[in-house]
Amino acid sequence: MKTNLAPLGPKAGKESVRSHNLSLVLRAVLDEGEATRAGIASRVGLTRAAVSSLVDELIDAGYLTEHGKAFSGQAGRPGTVLRMSRTGPAGLGVEINVDYISASVVDLSGADRFRLTEHTDNRGGPPADALGRAAQLAARALASAEEHGLHAVAAELALPGLVSGGTVRQAPNLGWSQVAAEGVFAQALAAARPGHRALPVTAENEANLAALAELWFGGLGPRRSFLYVSGEIGIGGALVVDGELFRGAHGFAGEIGHVVVRPDGPRCRCGANGCLEQYAGQAALLRAVGLDEKAGLDGVEELARRAAAGDEATVGALEDAGQMLGLALSGAVNLLDPDAVVLGGIYRGLARWLAAAAGRELAQRVVSGLWAEDRLLAASLAGTTVAARGAAAHAVWASLPRGAESRLR
Amino acid sequence: MKTNLAPLGPKAGKESVRSHNLSLVLRAVLDEGEATRAGIASRVGLTRAAVSSLVDELIDAGYLTEHGKAFSGQAGRPGTVLRMSRTGPAGLGVEINVDYISASVVDLSGADRFRLTEHTDNRGGPPADALGRAAQLAARALASAEEHGLHAVAAELALPGLVSGGTVRQAPNLGWSQVAAEGVFAQALAAARPGHRALPVTAENEANLAALAELWFGGLGPRRSFLYVSGEIGIGGALVVDGELFRGAHGFAGEIGHVVVRPDGPRCRCGANGCLEQYAGQAALLRAVGLDEKAGLDGVEELARRAAAGDEATVGALEDAGQMLGLALSGAVNLLDPDAVVLGGIYRGLARWLAAAAGRELAQRVVSGLWAEDRLLAASLAGTTVAARGAAAHAVWASLPRGAESRLR
Repeated sequence: MKTNLAPLGPKAGKESVRSHNLSLVLRAVLDEGEATRAGIASRVGLTRAAVSSLVDELIDAGYLTEHGKAFSGQAGRPGTVLRMSRTGPAGLGVEINVDYISASVVDLSGADRFRLTEHTDNRGGPPADALGRAAQLAARALASAEEHGLHAVAAELALPGLVSGGTVRQAPNLGWSQVAAEGVFAQALAAARPGHRALPVTAENEANLAALAELWFGGLGPRRSFLYVSGEIGIGGALVVDGELFRGAHGFAGEIGHVVVRPDGPRCRCGANGCLEQYAGQAALLRAVGLDEKAGLDGVEELARRAAAGDEATVGALEDAGQMLGLALSGAVNLLDPDAVVLGGIYRGLARWLAAAAGRELAQRVVSGLWAEDRLLAASLAGTTVAARGAAAHAVWASLPRGAESRLR
Repeated sequence: MKTNLAPLGPKAGKESVRSHNLSLVLRAVLDEGEATRAGIASRVGLTRAAVSSLVDELIDAGYLTEHGKAFSGQAGRPGTVLRMSRTGPAGLGVEINVDYISASVVDLSGADRFRLTEHTDNRGGPPADALGRAAQLAARALASAEEHGLHAVAAELALPGLVSGGTVRQAPNLGWSQVAAEGVFAQALAAARPGHRALPVTAENEANLAALAELWFGGLGPRRSFLYVSGEIGIGGALVVDGELFRGAHGFAGEIGHVVVRPDGPRCRCGANGCLEQYAGQAALLRAVGLDEKAGLDGVEELARRAAAGDEATVGALEDAGQMLGLALSGAVNLLDPDAVVLGGIYRGLARWLAAAAGRELAQRVVSGLWAEDRLLAASLAGTTVAARGAAAHAVWASLPRGAESRLR
């Protein structure tokens, strides 16, 4: 789904033309970070006068702000520089994962302006409780943002499971099944913010949103097609193709955690045997070195400390997990042929021990003979608010005039 | 990459508007099979007069023909019916596989008008020899087509390997590596047809083209996203998403034959161990029942005969292969979430024995819990000219005014 970047002619319906052209102007500023009216005009192929009128509308609506002067190097007077507004419309992202809840508020440039994380065990409890606590956390983040002139226009939930049509079909590691997360969260958020207008809420798989955050704010450079694998209690996976999420026919693509690596291996929470998650999920890693599998992120830090200290059993366990990861990844690369594979979540901090073994499997098994070490990357974003930030940016950009949200394709 | 189906306004550049609108008209006829000028006008949103002028141009260029009368059920005089021309522009498709070469000539509707297959062992010989024989075969098919008023405007090669930029990077089962197939074939075809204008030639992976043939001419109904798995000497795979080929970052997506099913399994021709091809490829199937693995399609027929006669060893071997196929497919479905998985090539005729075991693995391992038996299908097209037909239609539709080739999305 490429966006048509040419300006539409004046006969294509006045409203739709203006909305399309507004989005072109916004996208130009998003892409460039800052831009002049003349620069935008030459980029989008509209007259300077048309661009000025569009820019005025976007300034009035709070999308753009004007700053200083920029010398274009060309004849004529210098133009003022336009940037995405640091105040006004904002996006809210909220992640509920197995052992934390986090919230992020971003401005129109995608900058992460407010974030909060609450460490809490969300396993097994009633989904409405976790969604309610998430709404409380979100309300706190929104209140801080409002003090700085940022007003959320849309919210997105990031959830570790199969999400479609606003409902969590399955999130085995939370113990959720058929949870109408969008609706429940929207209501809880409205209750937590009396006197505020209700926000439109969407829900999405958290690995998908972490992958978008990596695409938009990470260090992938020109790579636009990648498989993102996120080590967590479960293993999240997402596929980005040409800068867009690949969701599959039902929205469930990317579930690399349940790719089989040993057909007769241990039973997985999903009901099958020998899934990757049983060898390279967080619990499996902790178990393999004798740590309590409920030790969570503290346990993962201890694991990394031991590995860094050269503890042989720990390094060996990570190499074994890396090999299993490599087996599953080599199949995925043969099927999907991405530019890169990105290791996120807890894999980011463990990549120096996992990547060598995974890379050996990839080098041996990727059939094109095109596998190169530099196609396996550690994510450049870390922490518990990555998916929430992706969700927040996704939400606010989707609320822009149609087309502008496709900024970074 | 959706095609914009709205007519462009009159100011968007006269040439591009006309070319775009020509493609809209053609696409309307392709989609409907037959159409009246009035029907086209209401479908594409242009005036009847504009459509008539476009239709006249397409009739003059040999794309459309006029037939009889159609009563629209509306007031006014009946319109004549327009169809894609059965003569004039045609597409040539040529497949070189391990043990045969085939050629197909299709008309503008995609109908398979002439086809030829030559059974021949193409393993290990100089690539130029096989490409030369393919050109001879193609020249014969083209000569027959010309006697019926069909003139190829483009050709496409279908090859069992990794193809990108006109070059076969690797086709392990042919023993080819770095073969500039497009150029060599174009030259050989020109030499085989003295006095004819040279045809533009493209090359593509054969499973990709067989999958397109299944999409366009098969029995998939509304399914537009599927994984196509083609049993052959190797195992070909292709992914179609929303009616379009998914090629991956380098054009090598879909290589399910080299997904690992037993990490310590037998060595594969690709250099890795335990690839699916070693358990469910044609040679492995023949070997498993004690048939000569070089027996080719005759051997596969014998295999099917024994299974149909209830030979337990044969049925057991097919079930084992089906289980391995199911293991690899379940990983692929978890990653890609397609509408359907289509078994083509030799798997089509063996599906009744393979599908039950494969289906059990899928039911157990697809994580959404959404797997349903009717998502695993046998291909509806059979024979050695399926990929060639896909190639021929792909070639001729790509030569139409820009946009019309996307007929069946």
